[in-house]
Parts: sequence; structure tokens; C-alpha cells
Amino acid sequence: MKETSLLEQLQIGTFHCAGQAFQSTMRLSSFHAQPFGFVNGGVYLAYGEALAGMASNAILAQETKPSSECGIGSESTKQRIAVGQSITANHVKPKRCEGYVVARGQLLHKGGRNHVWIINIFDEEDRLLSHMTVTNSIVNV
Amino acid sequence: MKETSLLEQLQIGTFHCAGQAFQSTMRLSSFHAQPFGFVNGGVYLAYGEALAGMASNAILAQETKPSSECGIGSESTKQRIAVGQSITANHVKPKRCEGYVVARGQLLHKGGRNHVWIINIFDEEDRLLSHMTVTNSIVNV
Amino acid sequence: MKETSLLEQLQIGTFHCAGQAFQSTMRLSSFHAQPFGFVNGGVYLAYGEALAGMASNAILAQETKPSSECGIGSESTKQRIAVGQSITANHVKPKRCEGYVVARGQLLHKGGRNHVWIINIFDEEDRLLSHMTVTNSIVNV
Amino acid sequence: MKETSLLEQLQIGTFHCAGQAFQSTMRLSSFHAQPFGFVNGGVYLAYGEALAGMASNAILAQETKPSSECGIGSESTKQRIAVGQSITANHVKPKRCEGYVVARGQLLHKGGRNHVWIINIFDEEDRLLSHMTVTNSIVNV
Repeated sequence: MKETSLLEQLQIGTFHCAGQAFQSTMRLSSFHAQPFGFVNGGVYLAYGEALAGMASNAILAQETKPSSECGIGSESTKQRIAVGQSITANHVKPKRCEGYVVARGQLLHKGGRNHVWIINIFDEEDRLLSHMTVTNSIVNV
Repeated sequence: MKETSLLEQLQIGTFHCAGQAFQSTMRLSSFHAQPFGFVNGGVYLAYGEALAGMASNAILAQETKPSSECGIGSESTKQRIAVGQSITANHVKPKRCEGYVVARGQLLHKGGRNHVWIINIFDEEDRLLSHMTVTNSIVNV
Repeated sequence: MKETSLLEQLQIGTFHCAGQAFQSTMRLSSFHAQPFGFVNGGVYLAYGEALAGMASNAILAQETKPSSECGIGSESTKQRIAVGQSITANHVKPKRCEGYVVARGQLLHKGGRNHVWIINIFDEEDRLLSHMTVTNSIVNV
Repeated sequence: MKETSLLEQLQIGTFHCAGQAFQSTMRLSSFHAQPFGFVNGGVYLAYGEALAGMASNAILAQETKPSSECGIGSESTKQRIAVGQSITANHVKPKRCEGYVVARGQLLHKGGRNHVWIINIFDEEDRLLSHMTVTNSIVNV
């Protein structure tokens, strides 16, 4: 039996990425709770780092698209991906583990070697729950 | 059916806390992997924040133990717990998602309102994988 | 001869604080330069931490104003001040050490014991130079 | 009249770098004080970021030394320097602005593109004052 991964169990619901910003929602279940019934702070960290990676990889995929129809595409063999390098988070407000949360991210810095994302996580009434800065390293694979 | 929580699924194996330091081990399974087969960085974050909370709560429980045999224990009604407030992490080295990791923590600052922990996570051969600083807020409940 | 302090030598030009936000400007001189002629990253850190402290203290001063005309003001003997506790900064873009910089801050979290500020520093053309999160501890003196 | 820079006015006294560690001392004067007579937290930030840069550049200079006497030295035309990228600091303990402080740094991660330093600043009696993590970006100039 294949165990499902942390990433799958977070059950990220929606993820929309446009330009240098993204928005996502995640429905909360008992997976996300700590023993007292609030959202586990580690959930926000794992969620935020996952979103930053998805958003950076979406940007990189966009940039490396073949730009002509000639089909030679020699550059497509070299793929760049984003790897989480550092994160700083401030948990601002506890939330009972029910309903859902909304994450909004903005690309603070887009360098050739690093992407820095600001991510805010809100509750259903748009109150800030956690604020984080995620730096991704861009590596060739 | 009760879903198991993130905290349970991390499957923290051992946790020893002595004075102002702790050590813990965690065996890796497919739960901890990202799609490319390495350990998901979010796992280290969730693990580190969980350990810091456990260690702070162990210290607080020690401090609020009834200090006399008279059994009145009036102070025991006021409980102090640690709540994760902020975290900063640097992921240093990727690890294939197999074997186990070891975490070692040290209390950097023990104030009345905050505990600051330094936590390093190592692989089986004692190579540093991730370094983090976790600040817990101490609150009365 | 009294040496002038770091805070004085930064030569913070303007500082306007309204509600939970502030704006400030600082003119650059050779004091702010590193050896290659760019702004020293430490300048942004010292500037940001100073502004966060000024802004938190402005809020605290507002809150502890005598609220009645009776003039007894017994609470005014207990003063609360903001003390820098932690800072995280990402330097985004180098700037030649000339002209001026603009800082804009927003209060991310206002608790009884902590204020968390997000501060962005921009150049004359509104390009982001450095992004930081400053947490102040609120203490009674 | 040439104004002296922040870096000069910090008056870093000693700096010894060996392998992947360094130690430094800095004597305190009124330059380093905030209005209440304690050390300005911004001083620790500027000091720590400066030391991390000095230590990374010492390592890079060591690595790019001409390795033979033949004098061709074609690589020496390409110079790599360290540029401060991000910093996280926790101020642990206030100190009256007198005497001196000691900083000790250790290289946490040495990649081709980044150096991550852990720096602790202590008072004369070896009590921790501030703990920080500085990430330098290694760039070609």
C-alpha cells in the first residue's frame, strides 16, 4: 500500500497563478489540527513552501517554453526547477481547524538564481493568520 | 472515520529532552517525500516546529509542578503553554526520502514570555540538512 | 566631545506615522556606503529596526494618553515601550549610495505583547531595495 | 571633508578567520547606543552582516589564489565576491553600551552560490546577546 504524501494530504483545493502573483484555497480537516483543535502552525509552513514552489515552477515553465514552431527545441533539454531554500514565518492569529484558508502570494524578487515570495494566509473573513517569506533557489537539472 | 493528523503522520520516533536541550529521531516514509523522491522541505518545518513546542511544554510542565506536598496546588489551575510564534529555516542539503533524520535542539533564550530554540536536523551520517530558529510564545490558558 | 550615535548619523529625514502605517525618507551620504560605493546592507537593517521602534512607540504613546479630564492620570506612571526582538530581511536590489531611499511600513500584527511590522525600502523610482519583518516586544518600564 | 562610513565607525577591533569559523571583538562607544543607553539593536545587525561578508570574502580569496608559480593566472581576472542577501536575527539580551562585545561565526553551508553563516554575539562574560543567520550570495564581478 502506497502511503499518501504530506503534499497530497494537505489537499490544496485551488491554485491560480497569474504573472507574479497567485491565490490558493485549502479546506481544513482533522489532518490540519494540533491536539487543542486549532490549525497546526506546521500546516501553514508546509502549505506556504509548497505554494511558493508551485508558483516558481509555473514561472520557469513559462520562460522555457519553446518560442518557435521549428521544433528544434534544443534548450528544452535543460530544465530549471525551484527548490525551497529558506523560509521565515510569523504566525499572527490562531484559527479553529474548520472551514478553509486562503493564501495569496506575490513575487518580491525574481533573479536568475532566486525567487523570493511573500505569502499571506487568511481565514474566511480575510483576517491574516500567518505571514511568510519563502526563498527558492533556481537550479538546473 | 477519524483522519490522522499531520503531527501523528510525521511519526516522530524518539524525543528526549534534558535541561535546555533535546534530541529526536524520525523515520522517513513516502509521507515525507516530494514528487522527486527527496524529503519535502515542509516536513522539516513541521517537524521542527512540533519539537520546539514539545520541548517548551516539557520545560513549562517542569516549572509548574506542585512544589509542596500539602496538596492544595492552587497554582496548578493556571497553565502555561507554548504556542509557535515565528520560525526561520535554511534548508542546507537535500536528502533522498529513506532512512531517518535526527534533530537536535538547544534553548537559545528562555524568557518569561518567549522561548527561542535553535534546531538542527541531520542525516544518518550527521550531515546538516536544515537549520532553524523557532520562537514560542508562552501563554496562559 | 560627545560622539554622535548611529541613530543620529543615519539622518532619518522624514517620518510620518498614521494609524497602522508609516512612511519615511532618508538621504544617503558616504556614511551609508560600503567600500564599493553601494549602500551598505547594514544601513537598511539599522534604518528598518529604528523605524519599527519609532512607529510602535508612537502607537503606544497614543494608547496610554490620559483618557479623561480629571487629571489624576495614575496609569501614566506605567510606561510601555517597544524593544526590537527579531528581524528578518531580504536585500533585493543593490543601489549606488546617492540620492535617497523611502521606507514604508505596515503593522502586520498588534498584540498586547508584540508588534510585527512589514517594512519595504524603495529607491527614488519606487523599485524595491529591501524587504523586512521586524518584531518588537512591548515591555513595561 | 570625507564623512566616515558606518563600517568604519563600528570600529571593529579584531577579526580572526580560520577555516570555516571566525571571531571578532568590537569596543562600544556612544556611537553604538540607543537613547536609553543600551546597545542599539541595529548595531548588532550591521556588525553581523559586515563580519559575514568579511569572512566569506576571506574564504573566496583563499580559493582563488593562484595555485602555481607559472604566472599565467588567467583565472585571477574573474573575481568572486560575497554580497549580503538575507539576515535573520534574534536579540536575546539587552546590554548597557559600555565595554565590548565578542562575535563568533560558523559557516553553516558553503555552496557555490551561497554561504550561510551562524553568528552569535556575546558580552564580556560570554552571555549571548544576539543570534543571527546571514546568507551571502556569491557573485562574479
